[in-house]
Amino acid sequence: MKLCRFLDKGRVHQGVYREGVLLDEAGLPHDPEGVVWLLPFTPGKILGLALNYPDHAEELGLSRPEEPALFWKPNSALLPHRGTVIYPRGVEFMHYEVELAVVVGRPMRKVRAAQAMDYVLGYTIANDLVVRDWVKNTFRPPIRAKGHDTFLPLGPFLVTREEVPDPHDLWMRAYVNGELRQEGHTSRMLFRIPEILEFISGFMTLEPFDVILTGTPKGVSRVRPGDVMRLEIQGLGALENPIEEEA
Amino acid sequence: MKLCRFLDKGRVHQGVYREGVLLDEAGLPHDPEGVVWLLPFTPGKILGLALNYPDHAEELGLSRPEEPALFWKPNSALLPHRGTVIYPRGVEFMHYEVELAVVVGRPMRKVRAAQAMDYVLGYTIANDLVVRDWVKNTFRPPIRAKGHDTFLPLGPFLVTREEVPDPHDLWMRAYVNGELRQEGHTSRMLFRIPEILEFISGFMTLEPFDVILTGTPKGVSRVRPGDVMRLEIQGLGALENPIEEEA
Repeated sequence: MKLCRFLDKGRVHQGVYREGVLLDEAGLPHDPEGVVWLLPFTPGKILGLALNYPDHAEELGLSRPEEPALFWKPNSALLPHRGTVIYPRGVEFMHYEVELAVVVGRPMRKVRAAQAMDYVLGYTIANDLVVRDWVKNTFRPPIRAKGHDTFLPLGPFLVTREEVPDPHDLWMRAYVNGELRQEGHTSRMLFRIPEILEFISGFMTLEPFDVILTGTPKGVSRVRPGDVMRLEIQGLGALENPIEEEA
Repeated sequence: MKLCRFLDKGRVHQGVYREGVLLDEAGLPHDPEGVVWLLPFTPGKILGLALNYPDHAEELGLSRPEEPALFWKPNSALLPHRGTVIYPRGVEFMHYEVELAVVVGRPMRKVRAAQAMDYVLGYTIANDLVVRDWVKNTFRPPIRAKGHDTFLPLGPFLVTREEVPDPHDLWMRAYVNGELRQEGHTSRMLFRIPEILEFISGFMTLEPFDVILTGTPKGVSRVRPGDVMRLEIQGLGALENPIEEEA
């Protein structure tokens, strides 16, 4: 199932997207171009992995981490499909990053990799935006670099687990103004989802709707006000967000 | 007002603590030693400041940060007054850290320092526990070092702002098994509360019940299973937590 939430005529709907048709709770169709998209669910805590694709670590000139290099994205940075990303004043290098986001479905504490996938509710697309100017320490960037308001577009759907038989067999692509800029495949993750979940739940209880961003492949590049980013992951749809200069 | 929440005979109470007496919603007294303490409120996002007391930065042999050095504490690490802190297996250096915690009362976005205090709901005591073994990069420790389950005792009260005329004029002390180990004064913060709130709200929207831990003074030291930590801040009460080895 591709679950989503949207506003139509001021009313919140919990919808399902099926073969290009957007249906509400009553099974009535809505125009996907005419609704206001909301986050497909309300995330709990949100963790990301830095440098989890070796080709991306190489393009940044950095070595592979020895254990999952976790960072935090604040919930205040969340933005739904079609929401406008703010380009902070005075910034030089803002990068998009397409990432497979894993959504936790059951409380997890010290879960082994072999069982970890049973705790996954589903998947969605994340745009892990970052301002490189503010990174300084690339291995562990300051919260500001990745935590700015609007720096986490997420959606458009929560795609439940049974629709994604193998989350390590998905193409991911990022387009800017229609031009392909980033391409990768989830088979190339350094730490794979079961290992990541074992690592995190080994010290931190994960709860339903917590989100893990599994890293970005090679191909990040600069975006500017006026650009439109479109992120696609095989089977998960497309997450589209324009960028506007800060008011 | 000193607001708190506690369980008595299985029932949750929203209480008030006044001159040593614990009263529930109906004004009935309860025995503070006979109740189960809960978190005084449910925090939103939780941010901490590393090295915000120059004397503590010195004791760690580190330089003063040029801007507030933020880190994240996950909500899954929260623990109320009297809750048991887990000492992870195989760890050598676990440190307590007494800190004044600021609780946000109204949404804040790009608020100037001069107005920032109007957005504060109140204060409480935090124990920003850390495992030094896992820190590696002292300036920006990995999430595991400070984010382990039970590594954020908080409470016992939410002390509303009007009871704390000057949050930069408070003594803070940490005792281990009754012995004074850490002592400081909130006047010695490097970045003061209004500046911190201006800095964070400059890029990240702060919401009611978000929490900022304002840093710890000199005097951190090792604690072990079996120890009891007691953290006091002038006017905010005492936060007491025992430590137990991981099962």
